[in-house]
Amino acid sequence: MARIVMKFGGTSMAGTERIRRVARIVQRQQAAGHEVAVVVSAMAGETDRLVNFCREASALYDPAEYDVVVASGEQVTSGLLAMHLQALGCKARSWLGWQLPIHTDDAASKARIEGIDSQALLASMAAGEIAVIPGFQGLSDANRITTLGRGGSDTSAVAVAAGIKADRCDIYTDVDGVYTTDPRIVAKARKLKNVTYEEMLELASVGSKVLQTRSVSLAMKEKVRVQVLSSFIDETAPAADTLPGTMIVSDEELEGLDMERQLITGIAADKNDAKVILTAVPDRPGAVALIFGPLAEANINVDMIIQNVGRADTDTDVTFTVPQADLERTKAVLEANRPGIGYEKFSTDPKVSKISVVGVGMRSHAGVAATMFKALADRAINIQAISTSEIKVSVLIDSDETELAVRVLHTAYGLDAE
Amino acid sequence: MARIVMKFGGTSMAGTERIRRVARIVQRQQAAGHEVAVVVSAMAGETDRLVNFCREASALYDPAEYDVVVASGEQVTSGLLAMHLQALGCKARSWLGWQLPIHTDDAASKARIEGIDSQALLASMAAGEIAVIPGFQGLSDANRITTLGRGGSDTSAVAVAAGIKADRCDIYTDVDGVYTTDPRIVAKARKLKNVTYEEMLELASVGSKVLQTRSVSLAMKEKVRVQVLSSFIDETAPAADTLPGTMIVSDEELEGLDMERQLITGIAADKNDAKVILTAVPDRPGAVALIFGPLAEANINVDMIIQNVGRADTDTDVTFTVPQADLERTKAVLEANRPGIGYEKFSTDPKVSKISVVGVGMRSHAGVAATMFKALADRAINIQAISTSEIKVSVLIDSDETELAVRVLHTAYGLDAE
Repeated sequence: MARIVMKFGGTSMAGTERIRRVARIVQRQQAAGHEVAVVVSAMAGETDRLVNFCREASALYDPAEYDVVVASGEQVTSGLLAMHLQALGCKARSWLGWQLPIHTDDAASKARIEGIDSQALLASMAAGEIAVIPGFQGLSDANRITTLGRGGSDTSAVAVAAGIKADRCDIYTDVDGVYTTDPRIVAKARKLKNVTYEEMLELASVGSKVLQTRSVSLAMKEKVRVQVLSSFIDETAPAADTLPGTMIVSDEELEGLDMERQLITGIAADKNDAKVILTAVPDRPGAVALIFGPLAEANINVDMIIQNVGRADTDTDVTFTVPQADLERTKAVLEANRPGIGYEKFSTDPKVSKISVVGVGMRSHAGVAATMFKALADRAINIQAISTSEIKVSVLIDSDETELAVRVLHTAYGLDAE
Repeated sequence: MARIVMKFGGTSMAGTERIRRVARIVQRQQAAGHEVAVVVSAMAGETDRLVNFCREASALYDPAEYDVVVASGEQVTSGLLAMHLQALGCKARSWLGWQLPIHTDDAASKARIEGIDSQALLASMAAGEIAVIPGFQGLSDANRITTLGRGGSDTSAVAVAAGIKADRCDIYTDVDGVYTTDPRIVAKARKLKNVTYEEMLELASVGSKVLQTRSVSLAMKEKVRVQVLSSFIDETAPAADTLPGTMIVSDEELEGLDMERQLITGIAADKNDAKVILTAVPDRPGAVALIFGPLAEANINVDMIIQNVGRADTDTDVTFTVPQADLERTKAVLEANRPGIGYEKFSTDPKVSKISVVGVGMRSHAGVAATMFKALADRAINIQAISTSEIKVSVLIDSDETELAVRVLHTAYGLDAE
């Protein structure tokens, strides 16, 4: 017997028939002898509908009242799933964020979970009752509903799993696991049986949108074993303890599971960055701080930074990337700070892609980056910038070459399925 | 300065533009110097949509989970109205049923309010904040959301008014007050300036569906002054302390307001009853108890009862009315108890109307019933049954004659507008 948390997203909860399917999937886990808590999202489209009402009320709506309005979507699906489970003969009840409660800070609309009172929940589960918990919401010290930000239900599920010391947190999504790369780009992409938290964080933050990044960070911190699997499995199949998804585990656990693992776990591509080039920046101490200080103050997340040799001895060129969504604000900040920075001109290029190879294996192996550069050079793909972390090497290329680069690297690192 | 509660129904809250109108109406009351709490219904149609999801989940859905699901409708409108008020520059916040809390008993889906913790609410209102409270819901001792039954928001408004000792509870509806009779039947119907709780109860229970009966009972018990007025007033008109609605007050207050008041306050018609005739019931002690005992056990609400002389000395005919909705169940109960009762046969007639004249004035005046009988007899309208209370005389007639009877009586009691 295990204690498990199951999480279902909005597509899985969209309407009576789909909720009934979810109820059957949950029932099978209980029938297999497990204690089960379920975390649910609002019906697909419902949160958008509610957010729209808020925007119509006021462009500068109160985030505390926004939380009151949008939290209702998950409240509805949690009550309905409890009913559907009861209709199948299961004992079940909903536990709203304020009922447990799930304690958060006071940051309305972007709250962080601080802890969960799990005593009543554990007693209910021990008595054979399935707990249904609305995702995305909690309670502040001021006794007000808070929400965690869009996509927060993954984080709720991991927090609940940590709170009740669950053996596993199963995230049911519309994909059936984490792949070595996007299967729409590379037909030979393989589903990973295991991936570490760190790898998942790097893959998620550079474009593999399977799980919310925050939920992975929390899982890593709280050592929650997370499994990603498809909610479109045959709900009449017997419940298996090890469903064929991807398990996200710690480095140590992975060592035990997979001694002969690949050097590289996956390849991610991200087209959401834009490149900014500042030419003829004065080459003196503190010049770079004058550029990136104001951008940081404007809450613009600068990713890669390269400083080139300029055309004269006294100045230099600086290239960096920002999210495309922040490009207009970046331009405004640069214009406003032109006298202080003293650059000659700037140009921007939204047509760039960041390609990353990720894998904990590269910690102990040299030559990962060299393999990447050679493979790209062989296909004449020009590298515009490079950045590295302990388990990742990223390069910036022309976005027209995205798919080609991913395919080339997938083969170069031996990731292609047989 | 007064402390007032304003209540808006689902039609008034249906969508952004209507909520914005409501916000303006509320703002004007605050601008007039009042402390204001607002009780809101869900958007028109929303509760039906949510109830439908519950029915699809299970015919025998859990009323506790039903409450979780349907209470969300008012949660949404309370958050939105708070935002709209803020957009107008008012201080405002929502207070959910569990936040105040509004204490109820444990009867899920049909809970009764036991009390309201008003301390935080009063402090907020005293600080100039408009309190927005979702109607229809509260919190049980088991810390679960409860709802009060459909239409319960009127009752919530009166309970809040009692809890904060409001000077007035204004119920905004899609009619602009309580009339002497249905204006669709009698063009000369007059809007009443005042009506007593008792009269309102009699008028509501026999068909004037302006206010939920429970809310009137509660207002009477807690001595809350309730005003019925239209939510379709010009929201740009100045806020008046005495808006042109109908004020529901106590007997004593009415005496002071309206010394020369009418003998009769209003005429109500109700087509929702059905007549049942049992023929040849044995004329012996206890025979009637054998009929009505089983009906009471089946929770069927018998209204008028008449015992006629039968065809022989040893038996009698018994006629009574039940709600049409209960007619099939009534037939089943009578069939099942035929041996015990010993009647010869029964017949039913759904084509009946109950016409009631209501007025506290009749307590001190003889001849009210005689006027009614004569007026109906003059137009050859046959009276099938009669029942009376201290402030009401009701007769049962053929439903084809409903409109004629109402018009005749409206004139006979001098209620026609000039």
